[in-house]
Amino acid sequence: VLSLVELLAKKRDGKALARAEIDRIIGAFLAGELADYQMTALLMAIFLRGMTDEETVALTEAMTRSGDVLDLSSVPGVKVDKHSTGGVGDKVSIALAPLVASCGVFVPMVSGRGLGHTGGTLDKLEAIPGFDVSLPTERFVEIVRTVGTAMIGQTARIAPADKRIYALRDVTATVESIPLIVASILSKKLAEGIDALVLDVKVGRGAFMKSEADARRLAQALVRVGTAAHKRVVALLTRMDDPLGLAIGNANETREAVLVLHGAGPADLVECTLALGAEMLVLGGRASTEDEARGRLEASIRRGDAVQCLERLIEAHGGDPRVAADPSRLDVAPLVLEVRAARSGYVAAIDAYELGVSTIALGGGRTRADQAVDHGVGIDLRKKPGDAVAAGEVLCTVRARRELDVPLDRIERAFTLADAPTPAGPLVLGRVDAAGAI
Amino acid sequence: VLSLVELLAKKRDGKALARAEIDRIIGAFLAGELADYQMTALLMAIFLRGMTDEETVALTEAMTRSGDVLDLSSVPGVKVDKHSTGGVGDKVSIALAPLVASCGVFVPMVSGRGLGHTGGTLDKLEAIPGFDVSLPTERFVEIVRTVGTAMIGQTARIAPADKRIYALRDVTATVESIPLIVASILSKKLAEGIDALVLDVKVGRGAFMKSEADARRLAQALVRVGTAAHKRVVALLTRMDDPLGLAIGNANETREAVLVLHGAGPADLVECTLALGAEMLVLGGRASTEDEARGRLEASIRRGDAVQCLERLIEAHGGDPRVAADPSRLDVAPLVLEVRAARSGYVAAIDAYELGVSTIALGGGRTRADQAVDHGVGIDLRKKPGDAVAAGEVLCTVRARRELDVPLDRIERAFTLADAPTPAGPLVLGRVDAAGAI
Repeated sequence: VLSLVELLAKKRDGKALARAEIDRIIGAFLAGELADYQMTALLMAIFLRGMTDEETVALTEAMTRSGDVLDLSSVPGVKVDKHSTGGVGDKVSIALAPLVASCGVFVPMVSGRGLGHTGGTLDKLEAIPGFDVSLPTERFVEIVRTVGTAMIGQTARIAPADKRIYALRDVTATVESIPLIVASILSKKLAEGIDALVLDVKVGRGAFMKSEADARRLAQALVRVGTAAHKRVVALLTRMDDPLGLAIGNANETREAVLVLHGAGPADLVECTLALGAEMLVLGGRASTEDEARGRLEASIRRGDAVQCLERLIEAHGGDPRVAADPSRLDVAPLVLEVRAARSGYVAAIDAYELGVSTIALGGGRTRADQAVDHGVGIDLRKKPGDAVAAGEVLCTVRARRELDVPLDRIERAFTLADAPTPAGPLVLGRVDAAGAI
Repeated sequence: VLSLVELLAKKRDGKALARAEIDRIIGAFLAGELADYQMTALLMAIFLRGMTDEETVALTEAMTRSGDVLDLSSVPGVKVDKHSTGGVGDKVSIALAPLVASCGVFVPMVSGRGLGHTGGTLDKLEAIPGFDVSLPTERFVEIVRTVGTAMIGQTARIAPADKRIYALRDVTATVESIPLIVASILSKKLAEGIDALVLDVKVGRGAFMKSEADARRLAQALVRVGTAAHKRVVALLTRMDDPLGLAIGNANETREAVLVLHGAGPADLVECTLALGAEMLVLGGRASTEDEARGRLEASIRRGDAVQCLERLIEAHGGDPRVAADPSRLDVAPLVLEVRAARSGYVAAIDAYELGVSTIALGGGRTRADQAVDHGVGIDLRKKPGDAVAAGEVLCTVRARRELDVPLDRIERAFTLADAPTPAGPLVLGRVDAAGAI
């Protein structure tokens, strides 16, 4: 039997670790027998040497088993979740979960907080007065069963090994490793007790993966490893060059997500929500084809079922349910500044990354994990790529607490204007399922 | 300016760090701003990505500057030290330092403890009753000036960054990295305030470097980096398949080292001592050629100057100076076991590694840094490779405290007997100097 240091040397030398070896490493890490400084050396070795799918499955499952796996056996039918790799203006989950649940598919969702330049679903939900994202597991299961969906944060009991490893990766330049990303995402999702998972792998300036090739590799690895871990997994590659929708910021984005359920969301956000939702309905056995699924989702919006489901979701989480019918109830920051076009032309691009970072500067996100978030600040786009704009016309408005906080130059520079309109590409760039993941 | 995490990413991606960046990393590490778990991720990245000579020089010098650099300006003339990469039965330093000093070259020596299967000079010196290896710096300098040589351990003030980094490497599978080995060795040696350095790079079964190619690469890197750090450096590659000399263990080895100064050492040990000593005399300006240098060393032994210098060295360190004239005064363990040949033939090989590990089992070394060492136990070879042996003849004797501790099988298996004598190769396999290091 190899010692823990010999296991590090094995991965360092590019050999594949056996399942039992990976189990020992995670077990020793949790027991304090493998120190943080040993884990980070291993993480760097994994970053540079990679992992086989078998290793990644074993790592994922060891991290899942490091905590509780939710028991959703009391919830009938197929449980399906969605995970996004993160972008700017990505408020899809808040619309998607009640929408899909209103069509009869159970959606148990464990979400995250904003990190880097991207926002987090939990922060956006907390813009709703009273909304509690830290419910006990039993209550979470109860809400999924009665409402159809519930949304909480990663508790200390869900994949604690992932939580500790993620924190170490963040400060050791070992974040951008496909096997580590896959294990981190899937270990938490497997702990939800789901049957199937739809992944939204974002590509572009405002995403973690800048190139389509990298995003496709990640999507394929996620689908392969998730499938090997006995889940039905589909991934969509979606464009994240410009912000998704018009709203950035917490209350802003929650409001816009609610508007989607009222049939009043911006086109790209609606398209993203329906594309992902259709996959979830098919995986959940509530539709046989994507077209059928889209029809059901649209009907639910038309009939008001989705808004009603959202209302019940908010109420179950202790939030103000009136927000579902009237999202203008959300509290926003008092100061509004306008950013105007310096010239006439067409919007060629809006840099999602720059606006994400600007929103953090406004106080709407964190640069350290322990920072408080201002839910009321943010940016509302008035123009999207492809739109014509006259000199002096408003490109976006900025909601702030203090004029001082507003990085106006940066926000202005995020807009690229051109003489001629450039055609916007499709939002969904590709689709990967178990058949196409190899 | 890149953040510390961005510097980790730079090395991770195989780029060379600038001197100022390496200085920042070591500075932040010492100040507690770069955590152990960040340093180990960097060490693994260095292990897998390597370092240029410029980076290794910068790392070496940053580690040297992390503590005090001894001021030997009060000692006249050229100061030359020797460093061995470690082997079994390697007691050369104890003979070499007083021998070279007796010929007029000052030898300030900071030595180490036993680690892994190899012994350490400090443990061997402490077999001399009263010998104190932890003298304050001022006293060390004083002894070098008055006796010509002094031998202490790495204090907390000598290259503390190396001390902390070495401890981390040991538990993160990042030991066998040429730039890290070079920086570790040279940072301590540069802190001695020396002008020149002779390196004994051991090759073979009982050495750290098993192949001549690896050893040559290490020797070349040591000479290149040492030269770039403005020291005159020569490295010899010497064979370490069989133990050096006949004695293994602390008191055993010290006794044999003293015998070398009496002109009564075994041939291979004498050859190793003279070859290294000749390089030191040439570097120290006390001889122009190797032949001339060997003549001076041999004369010093003949005249008794070397033994007299050892006597003064022991006395200055608080030890019993009578050991220099009569090494049989060293305390040894009471129990003596004989290991006999099962057949007649010729000794083809004696596995240094196996006898090194066996000596640790006897209590003569450590498996953990905080263990006490039994100075009286050890192994005395009666046969060397090439020797004829009759069935039942004694191959070696073992000195032990308790019969229980003696791994007789392992010691027996270390000897390979053959029907015909195999010619022993030369001890010195190669020489690398600044001209031949590229």
